Amino acid sequence: MSDMMKAIQDEYADDYAWCYGCGRLNEQGLHLKTYWDGDQTVTTYTPREVHMAIPGFVYGGILASLIDCHGTGSAALALHRKNGHEPGDGIEPPRFVTGSLHVDFMKPTPSDVPLKAIGTVEEIHPKKWKVTTRVFAADTCCAKGEVVAVVMPDTFKN
Amino acid sequence: MSDMMKAIQDEYADDYAWCYGCGRLNEQGLHLKTYWDGDQTVTTYTPREVHMAIPGFVYGGILASLIDCHGTGSAALALHRKNGHEPGDGIEPPRFVTGSLHVDFMKPTPSDVPLKAIGTVEEIHPKKWKVTTRVFAADTCCAKGEVVAVVMPDTFKN
Repeated sequence: MSDMMKAIQDEYADDYAWCYGCGRLNEQGLHLKTYWDGDQTVTTYTPREVHMAIPGFVYGGILASLIDCHGTGSAALALHRKNGHEPGDGIEPPRFVTGSLHVDFMKPTPSDVPLKAIGTVEEIHPKKWKVTTRVFAADTCCAKGEVVAVVMPDTFKN
Repeated sequence: MSDMMKAIQDEYADDYAWCYGCGRLNEQGLHLKTYWDGDQTVTTYTPREVHMAIPGFVYGGILASLIDCHGTGSAALALHRKNGHEPGDGIEPPRFVTGSLHVDFMKPTPSDVPLKAIGTVEEIHPKKWKVTTRVFAADTCCAKGEVVAVVMPDTFKN
């Protein structure tokens, strides 16, 4: 990816940029960032040493978090593109929340390598998008995920 | 729950007590602890302030983590009981890993209240157990989860 590209999370409005998984304003968060790569989406993340299941292997809750924010971020990228916009063009993107999350843990995920989540986005309703994700550690697919992401409802607004 | 009761995570062998979600030896982890409550299982957890989706609401990845470790802990409790043991009797319990994780996010989950995960465990194979979980914030069920937990395979052992 070009250094010029922006992640969708760089573009969320400040009020919606506090997510522990992907909020740029959450200092202690994971700072997951999701980009277009052609017509797929990509989030790369290297777990912290403490994020282990047992020593040497990544904790499933971190993989679930990666798939979760990659899902909402991918859906936001896709709806933003459908609306004629790309990250960096100065238009605030839509903000999604997770309706459901499914993860199949295929193989133990080794620590110490960057994880790459690759997503495919499908519109199933104008406000509901499905993101299918594979998570790779080097060349090994260690987990598969599916997120149904929905445009943030008013019940989330304070 | 009686103060005398032990959580299943208190009983994991030291080598398997490093999980970011529930390992007692992981100093920066969440320290989730799962107990019997009759024939159901319970994990109570108060998210940290940083664990937000947006201010005022809990991050889904933390709910997924709660359901994940509650699932593996509940399965370990159940197989341990099937084998004639209870936490505290000095016998090392079995250790499970997550085969699959599903979460339906029903309602935004408010911060600042303890979350209570209540699980029902079902044996679907001697080494594979299904745990169905509801997560409550006060009296409101905010998420439902299902974990298929499997006895830790040799591929997880270093």
